[in-house]
Amino acid sequence: MTDRAAALPRSAFPHWQPIQTRWADNDSYGHVNNVVYYAWFDTAVNRFLLERGLLGPAVDWLGLVVHTHCDYFESVAFPQALEVGLRVANLGRSSVRYELGIFAEGSDRAAAQGQFVHVYVQASDRRPLPALPEPLRAALAPLASPGLT
Amino acid sequence: MTDRAAALPRSAFPHWQPIQTRWADNDSYGHVNNVVYYAWFDTAVNRFLLERGLLGPAVDWLGLVVHTHCDYFESVAFPQALEVGLRVANLGRSSVRYELGIFAEGSDRAAAQGQFVHVYVQASDRRPLPALPEPLRAALAPLASPGLT
Amino acid sequence: MTDRAAALPRSAFPHWQPIQTRWADNDSYGHVNNVVYYAWFDTAVNRFLLERGLLGPAVDWLGLVVHTHCDYFESVAFPQALEVGLRVANLGRSSVRYELGIFAEGSDRAAAQGQFVHVYVQASDRRPLPALPEPLRAALAPLASPGLT
Amino acid sequence: MTDRAAALPRSAFPHWQPIQTRWADNDSYGHVNNVVYYAWFDTAVNRFLLERGLLGPAVDWLGLVVHTHCDYFESVAFPQALEVGLRVANLGRSSVRYELGIFAEGSDRAAAQGQFVHVYVQASDRRPLPALPEPLRAALAPLASPGLT
Repeated sequence: MTDRAAALPRSAFPHWQPIQTRWADNDSYGHVNNVVYYAWFDTAVNRFLLERGLLGPAVDWLGLVVHTHCDYFESVAFPQALEVGLRVANLGRSSVRYELGIFAEGSDRAAAQGQFVHVYVQASDRRPLPALPEPLRAALAPLASPGLT
Repeated sequence: MTDRAAALPRSAFPHWQPIQTRWADNDSYGHVNNVVYYAWFDTAVNRFLLERGLLGPAVDWLGLVVHTHCDYFESVAFPQALEVGLRVANLGRSSVRYELGIFAEGSDRAAAQGQFVHVYVQASDRRPLPALPEPLRAALAPLASPGLT
Repeated sequence: MTDRAAALPRSAFPHWQPIQTRWADNDSYGHVNNVVYYAWFDTAVNRFLLERGLLGPAVDWLGLVVHTHCDYFESVAFPQALEVGLRVANLGRSSVRYELGIFAEGSDRAAAQGQFVHVYVQASDRRPLPALPEPLRAALAPLASPGLT
Repeated sequence: MTDRAAALPRSAFPHWQPIQTRWADNDSYGHVNNVVYYAWFDTAVNRFLLERGLLGPAVDWLGLVVHTHCDYFESVAFPQALEVGLRVANLGRSSVRYELGIFAEGSDRAAAQGQFVHVYVQASDRRPLPALPEPLRAALAPLASPGLT
């Protein structure tokens, strides 16, 4: 278990989105299944990008997911309202490593925390890009927390 | 296709909840997969019941789903914000037939509409209940629209 | 509940596929959630079409789902092995109504049964097709059971 | 990206299960969404345990998931048939670290590979167990590959 990260405080995350749980997010144990957290990560990152025009038909690039991980600290359950905090843990040459924390409303302790790595490719032929597109880098730089990386 | 229902107006639905779409709700066609609408129905009904203490460890009954259906009128897609309207189409002796409409924000035309039927059983042994529990009937009666049934 | 269909026997279904359940198909009640059956329907129909070259990049048409429904007769649960039977309940001018039965292995009584209606459009612009593509009609005709419709 | 694991060969995995893909496993990019791999991991581990009576009502323990991760090497897509290989990367005092590889049929290169860590608790009150239950340890020991850990 030596690869488990320490939970970051809310203040580590510059960007936030609400998360609505769904009935079937709960599994037979009556709490949210471990798989569902990744659906929240995926949604938070893609929503951030879509709302800024950095993903979709208007651009000729897209990020392919090459790594994800999650540490689970406390269980959550439908119908709880949750929040996801997002920061950029690393802006690479042609990749972005996001860090995400899932928080119960009012809690300062992450219920779960993980990472999500995109490698950028050309949308048309999915060939690797030599570098992150400039508008993407510009939008993500403010979410990077060098002191925390 | 003679079994397709006509879309109800927003005014037919007395109870509303917001719906957050998720990235993977979209399938290869780039719109929300037909299956996902049922996750929204399930969530809306169960959230309504849970928030009123009509479902969960405090009560000795639960509804088993015996029928669902959905008519799809227009596609929706992540990251759209949606709303679900809920009414009770029929309060039976020991069953409840909910009717649900999925609406894009600002639209008065349902994107999809369906039904969801619960038959009530005892939680402990899942044996049929002779009649709906009184608190449940009392909470649902205001959502029933006899004129529309 | 007058719209519940009677369960068809295995012999009503000319085409069969195995279904693997997944851990998270089970919800808090410890049985497969009502939503998941639709994922099985969707998969069975699309697998049938893909394996015959009637869906995908090679053809310029696709079916949009306009109606689905399901009646639930008995619960099933992960890790049960299941089978889905498929027949064509109606071959319309430009639509196909599939009927699907979910069976536990060795059981002659469907655990659930439903329908799934595709309306055909041109893949490129999603405009309605005046008629079903001929290769599609030819492949589906043997699955139609006029006597049962 | 320095935390990406190297893909293990098929020979590293002593236990195998088939995986059936589903239509909606594919996301808008036309390949299996990154989230779905975790549903396969979860299913493979729990199926292994259930089939040996090491999970379920007959035993008074259960594993809570505290960490998962996945590296994605190549995309897969419905309707591909896949296989998951499972080994035990570490048998701890009261935890088990599984390693899982997702393989396309006939391929000796994992399309994705990840880990899944269970910490064992008493089923009745979810309090930590001081040690793995003996029947569990006995069943898992043959899946551990000390040389590879």
